[in-house]
Amino acid sequence: MRPDLTATRQALLKGQQQALQVAEACLDMAQSAACQHVFRQITPDSFRKEATQTPAARPLAGLAVSVKDLFDVQGQITAAGSTILENQPPASQDAVAIARLRAAGAGFIGRTHMVEFAFSGVGINPHHGTPAAWDARTNSRAGSTPGAYAPGGSSSGAAVSVATGAAFIGLGSDTGGSIRIPAALNGIVGFKNTARRVPTHGAVPLSTTLDTVCAMTRSARDAVLAHEILSARKVAISTRPLSSYRLAVAKNLMLDDMDSTVTRAFERSLKNLRAAGAQIEEIDLPELLDLAPMMATGGFSPAESYAWHRHLLTQHADQYDPRVAHRIGRGAHMSAHDYIHLLQARKDWMDRMDKQLQRFDAVLSPTTPITAPLISSVAPGAERDAEFFRVNALLLRNPSAINVLDGCAISLPCHAPGELPVGLMAWHGAMHDDTILQLSLLLEPWLQTQ
Amino acid sequence: MRPDLTATRQALLKGQQQALQVAEACLDMAQSAACQHVFRQITPDSFRKEATQTPAARPLAGLAVSVKDLFDVQGQITAAGSTILENQPPASQDAVAIARLRAAGAGFIGRTHMVEFAFSGVGINPHHGTPAAWDARTNSRAGSTPGAYAPGGSSSGAAVSVATGAAFIGLGSDTGGSIRIPAALNGIVGFKNTARRVPTHGAVPLSTTLDTVCAMTRSARDAVLAHEILSARKVAISTRPLSSYRLAVAKNLMLDDMDSTVTRAFERSLKNLRAAGAQIEEIDLPELLDLAPMMATGGFSPAESYAWHRHLLTQHADQYDPRVAHRIGRGAHMSAHDYIHLLQARKDWMDRMDKQLQRFDAVLSPTTPITAPLISSVAPGAERDAEFFRVNALLLRNPSAINVLDGCAISLPCHAPGELPVGLMAWHGAMHDDTILQLSLLLEPWLQTQ
Repeated sequence: MRPDLTATRQALLKGQQQALQVAEACLDMAQSAACQHVFRQITPDSFRKEATQTPAARPLAGLAVSVKDLFDVQGQITAAGSTILENQPPASQDAVAIARLRAAGAGFIGRTHMVEFAFSGVGINPHHGTPAAWDARTNSRAGSTPGAYAPGGSSSGAAVSVATGAAFIGLGSDTGGSIRIPAALNGIVGFKNTARRVPTHGAVPLSTTLDTVCAMTRSARDAVLAHEILSARKVAISTRPLSSYRLAVAKNLMLDDMDSTVTRAFERSLKNLRAAGAQIEEIDLPELLDLAPMMATGGFSPAESYAWHRHLLTQHADQYDPRVAHRIGRGAHMSAHDYIHLLQARKDWMDRMDKQLQRFDAVLSPTTPITAPLISSVAPGAERDAEFFRVNALLLRNPSAINVLDGCAISLPCHAPGELPVGLMAWHGAMHDDTILQLSLLLEPWLQTQ
Repeated sequence: MRPDLTATRQALLKGQQQALQVAEACLDMAQSAACQHVFRQITPDSFRKEATQTPAARPLAGLAVSVKDLFDVQGQITAAGSTILENQPPASQDAVAIARLRAAGAGFIGRTHMVEFAFSGVGINPHHGTPAAWDARTNSRAGSTPGAYAPGGSSSGAAVSVATGAAFIGLGSDTGGSIRIPAALNGIVGFKNTARRVPTHGAVPLSTTLDTVCAMTRSARDAVLAHEILSARKVAISTRPLSSYRLAVAKNLMLDDMDSTVTRAFERSLKNLRAAGAQIEEIDLPELLDLAPMMATGGFSPAESYAWHRHLLTQHADQYDPRVAHRIGRGAHMSAHDYIHLLQARKDWMDRMDKQLQRFDAVLSPTTPITAPLISSVAPGAERDAEFFRVNALLLRNPSAINVLDGCAISLPCHAPGELPVGLMAWHGAMHDDTILQLSLLLEPWLQTQ
């Protein structure tokens, strides 16, 4: 069985469990077949020390945190899922997010694999292999076997580290869904806060406009805790009942192309929530249809990542994942005036969206319209590129809208036992983080039931 | 004689002068030869009404304000110095700056001519003629006669409206020196506040990164008042003596290429200030030499203005000033990644500069290294383009560094009687506005003496 760190935290707090025993269970899991391709580096010695020597009063004392490979940890090499940065010198100081977790007592169990430079939502990495999504149907250590499912990305290893119980918090980043997609595909919780809530200093950038530092956990309660630590503030407590929330389901875009598993899980979830008293209104949100035309000139990530990569990419293109190099390379051709227009169009769109969302506390959507693809269907290889890019676009479609909105969103598992994982996303615009987190605590009990 | 509105304000406040009489004197001046090419539109009827019917308690009651042609005033057409926008519908509401001035009791005397779309520092406009700089040597109504001097720009009419006494405040904008250059060349005061202090809403943009809404006045005291109204806050009062200010003169860049008049005025000013007790340290500030390489890809204005102009410019290039069309057109070719790099390079440069400036309250520099060129040497015409661009670059060089710094700066007249106007610029980084304004009150009495 996987370590249940949500329960473990309570046991540790009550002194019913020993920190060393918990740490060893996490290390065992991190080194097991279920975590194949999950960690680029496991740091057992420092982890044991951190997990056992931290004063028990700190909120993360005794608990494992995994670190997506794009964050600087003092003394470790930040490779961001690439081979090209593997020979860089180690980081001289912690990223802000790492420093905050460390101050909260985190034990850093290791660095998790990721999509190279965070540049897609499927979770495939040709250099380091692809971790298999936790198989929620069998609740088993799936491993990277034939028939295994892609974990989603770009925070692929982070998600599997949390789903398997090797880590209590999987620190990652979300530029277009990189926390919420793998959370959905692994049956765990992923909260993308409003970007400005957590400084990005010390993280390799993908899109300086959209990058968000955030985390995955197993429960909504743990998501609140992780967010409080990362954003260095307290989330306001609310006693509002579920029935007092004004919820919407947007009929445009986000319900398109759902597969039968997602359709079933999403509809059952809405039914369960309504039975629990939730007021859910189906609304038109035609602004969502303006996203694709707005992004027709390329969006933010290609140009902003090309600005960071241009020397590396010019000199070492052959060391990049060709799919990543292709997408970054498109950024070379964007004009400054198209970029400036995009910034302005985004601002206008945010204003229009915020106006539409004013009457609601949150919108509910499927995090992704499809369940995890088989790794074999999207694995590296030019003959699978078309399928890879098709799936990638579908996975990113819904979550990325919230990044463009500068908003916040949580993905909660909403599949019934025995089904492939499906995520339900509750979202809103900038700075609604506390409402979304409070709501998630009320939604969670109604989602994973028949 | 020109109306002395600084003195007039005191007389109005004390009830020693009638508002209508003052308004008529301003209108007389605005319609005189000294103000040839200064106003695109004079609004005598509404001005008389505003100047005489405003409650005397408002800070600008009875005083004339001129409006650079790029600000929206409800019911007026905003042409931004062009012919291409002259047939647009009138503005449906006031720009934020206009609304604040109106609330403070301003009487709007008219819209001032400017460089087309604010795109240079010399003050030449081929469509509407070029107002002559106020001739400080003779203190006379120079008019646009042979031998007349260029007013500086882009707020050319605004400067002459204040220098002649037609307006108490000349509302303008400063993207690379457009307030401070004409202030220097007309012997008046121009304060460029930190950009974020005044919203740009309702103003035609040149560079959305650098545009600053600010104003010209005849005295430092009036500059404080104008800034308090535009920024909707009070400037802190200080009783620090001049000797307590830590002042620097940067030896790099800003002292290069000074003509003999500027050299004489600047050196005499430093001598007078030292005699008055000022502590002035000559410092190396080699960061200033990094500006030109940083701007080698084109700077902010071409790409940001091209983003605004691209449809207009594609369809109506022949209606633009060729010199302006040339500079905006360069923005078409900038890449998004060069633009993104420029944003980051600017941020790094600001950090380095702020570190260097920490030990000082202000830096003193000549606003421009040269006095006003003759209009005849830089008038429209391809055969004078080389001279125009040479002079333009010299005029913009010092002031534009403060825009890149996101800083604040005041230009104070520092020429002795009988000399061509020269400006002394006191400057610092972002949000040092109050210190610069307080200091300017202490510097002012020592500058225009022999």
